[in-house]
Amino acid sequence: MKKLFNTKERIVDDMINGFVAAYPDIVARGANPRVVCRATPKPRDEKVALLIGNGSGHEPIAMGFVGSGLLDANIVGDVFAAPSPDLILEGIEEVTGDAGAVLLISRHEGDVINGNAAAMMAEDDGLKVRPLLMYDDISSAPKGQEDERRGAAGTMFIYKVLGAAAEAGMALDDLVALGEDVRARTRTLGAAVSPGISPLTGELMFTLPEDEIFIGMGVHGEPGVGRRKVGPVKDLVSFMVGELLDDRPIEPGATTVVLVNGSGGTTMMELLTIYNEVASVLSARDIPAVLPMIGSYSTTQEMGGFSISLFTPTPDMLKLWQAPHASPHFPHIHGGEGV
Amino acid sequence: MKKLFNTKERIVDDMINGFVAAYPDIVARGANPRVVCRATPKPRDEKVALLIGNGSGHEPIAMGFVGSGLLDANIVGDVFAAPSPDLILEGIEEVTGDAGAVLLISRHEGDVINGNAAAMMAEDDGLKVRPLLMYDDISSAPKGQEDERRGAAGTMFIYKVLGAAAEAGMALDDLVALGEDVRARTRTLGAAVSPGISPLTGELMFTLPEDEIFIGMGVHGEPGVGRRKVGPVKDLVSFMVGELLDDRPIEPGATTVVLVNGSGGTTMMELLTIYNEVASVLSARDIPAVLPMIGSYSTTQEMGGFSISLFTPTPDMLKLWQAPHASPHFPHIHGGEGV
Repeated sequence: MKKLFNTKERIVDDMINGFVAAYPDIVARGANPRVVCRATPKPRDEKVALLIGNGSGHEPIAMGFVGSGLLDANIVGDVFAAPSPDLILEGIEEVTGDAGAVLLISRHEGDVINGNAAAMMAEDDGLKVRPLLMYDDISSAPKGQEDERRGAAGTMFIYKVLGAAAEAGMALDDLVALGEDVRARTRTLGAAVSPGISPLTGELMFTLPEDEIFIGMGVHGEPGVGRRKVGPVKDLVSFMVGELLDDRPIEPGATTVVLVNGSGGTTMMELLTIYNEVASVLSARDIPAVLPMIGSYSTTQEMGGFSISLFTPTPDMLKLWQAPHASPHFPHIHGGEGV
Repeated sequence: MKKLFNTKERIVDDMINGFVAAYPDIVARGANPRVVCRATPKPRDEKVALLIGNGSGHEPIAMGFVGSGLLDANIVGDVFAAPSPDLILEGIEEVTGDAGAVLLISRHEGDVINGNAAAMMAEDDGLKVRPLLMYDDISSAPKGQEDERRGAAGTMFIYKVLGAAAEAGMALDDLVALGEDVRARTRTLGAAVSPGISPLTGELMFTLPEDEIFIGMGVHGEPGVGRRKVGPVKDLVSFMVGELLDDRPIEPGATTVVLVNGSGGTTMMELLTIYNEVASVLSARDIPAVLPMIGSYSTTQEMGGFSISLFTPTPDMLKLWQAPHASPHFPHIHGGEGV
């Protein structure tokens, strides 16, 4: 397999070792080396902890988002595999105090089962832990069945808004309600162009015809909802934004944040071109697009493809979206000069 | 060609349109739409302008680094082609006042010829413009002939340190001297794993055997200096860091900044693993590695591969390396919590 690793067995631990060696002022290993947490946490009796467990292989999500103003901990599973309930529990115990914790769960079967189990075990131990299911991918279940949808890149809006709110001292129940509101205001649709290579098998993760793009494929190669011929990206984006706005209409004038997420192997040239088309489609509908996030943040190895997420924040949410943070890999969202 | 563009003719302009639409508070188009400059520049009679022209296709470098504390302008050439002297001159005129300008030139033939020509034309127009050649790739010319080497990812140390110094008010001659000193303290060596696809031809940019890695290939597929069989990344990194330290020894105890730059299609998992090995090799020689930059910042489309750059800053340079900035795509380097 032509990947730059030592052995398959060492992939995840070597990566974590590199990460904590790179950013020792921001992140640290927990008692269990698969738990990555903030190097200088706030007092856990005052600040609600925000954390998530997920399979690795999608970096920088979620390990790269640990830091002040964002996540207190990430529990790192094996490649493409949810961490076990016991491991998630260790992560919860590492960062949770009297203020409680929000356990984010991106809606995929293993993550839901193990995350809910860990939250229950933590409650049994006397910790206040509220799981928050995240789902945004409109291709994975029809309108009206939103809570059966998969979590996709748009979950990053929840990370950031809740991370900033928790840093500012918001209480547990309010954070959960805020997260649910962000979730209700977010939709995502993705397109797959070329497969990534599994670090586990060395094989391509799926195949697709040379002249076709799959719409709605999941981050692990889950089946999509349709195929399109490769053509001008303008047509593809127009179709995708149309689907998103059909699923959740946005009123003219409603400030909207766009996330164009690359799957790993799609160039910044392409992502910026896609953003240009998204902004054009929105502008034609008098929807102002502000403070976007553009880059490869939730990836599937070197897979080619992207997703478009639309989020219509309240003014308060928009402030939290722009709040400073110190995570190594989340972009700094700002409307001004900054120096 | 399976790339997400409209037409070949529109690639660069669509990309720039997306970029300025995304970050209107930070960047703006110049009089010529191929010039991207700061939206809110400092008075040009007080601050030395810092700018560069380069072929596109390597994003985020250099367009993504325009902003306060970094570049005042980027002149965007066609894909993999240096901008013309006339276009570079337009960029210089756009941002240069009485304080003068430093025109960064990454040492590649077209960039050198056109950059120097533009600087001379600007001087003829009465502007104080000092070109600064940047070269760091140890595979492209032997030790002792450093000024015949190519510019590679390590040039980003010059961008950042000079960007922060210019923002703080350093004068023209001092900036050039500082840039030369950063250059003297930096070395880079790269490895190519798999080819990118040219957006111009739709073809793979080079071929290499399934079980081999090329050492020292340039960002446009320029020939490298050797081949190695794919093996544990530990061995590859140990070899590469050894070559870098043979070319420019670093004393035990000398604080060193590492840049692990991905070529585009190499995953964050792999880049963090590579950083882990670099830090281990340096640690074994008692060389402290601090404040690294890890990610795909100088790319060749979706090419697989990476480079390692080592930079031994003075304490002042290290402060400038960490200084705040507002560019959309340069990482925020910080040793602390930040919120």
